[in-house]
Amino acid sequence: MSLYKARVLVSLRPSVLDPAGEATKDAAGRLGVDGIRKLRIGKAIDLELEASDETEARRKLELLSDRLLANPVIENWKLELHMVPTTQSTMS
Amino acid sequence: MSLYKARVLVSLRPSVLDPAGEATKDAAGRLGVDGIRKLRIGKAIDLELEASDETEARRKLELLSDRLLANPVIENWKLELHMVPTTQSTMS
Repeated sequence: MSLYKARVLVSLRPSVLDPAGEATKDAAGRLGVDGIRKLRIGKAIDLELEASDETEARRKLELLSDRLLANPVIENWKLELHMVPTTQSTMS
Repeated sequence: MSLYKARVLVSLRPSVLDPAGEATKDAAGRLGVDGIRKLRIGKAIDLELEASDETEARRKLELLSDRLLANPVIENWKLELHMVPTTQSTMS
């Protein structure tokens, strides 16, 4: 078993409104930061998981992303590939 | 003016509890995905902004992150550096 690190980025589909992002964009203007053309808020889930190899780690992460981390009706997800196996069994 | 793209990653400080992340980790087990050692949920804010150069873009993004996107009492933030200037003035 190796320990893999991964990040899943979950973002709203482009066709879905993002009221929190719009409110934040407006607040940026009031803070004196102009020129913001787009601002969308998504989730970044950082994981560490044990798996026998990269294929198994990827399979687990894809299942998690599809079924638990993202709502496929309104969200897309992307797996970031800094899945570096380490020799430690855990990192706190 | 050039258009810059950036991503700000906001994560809870390691000393701060993440009940949503813990609940998600437990749900992963019930879904049949074992071996998850750590799961922390943060935010990923995708931005497009206009600035005269990279220094100004960076200054704006640092101000936004410190004052608006993250709560420095409980959160850290990191700026991802895919700030590629484009020739277009806006992208919808």
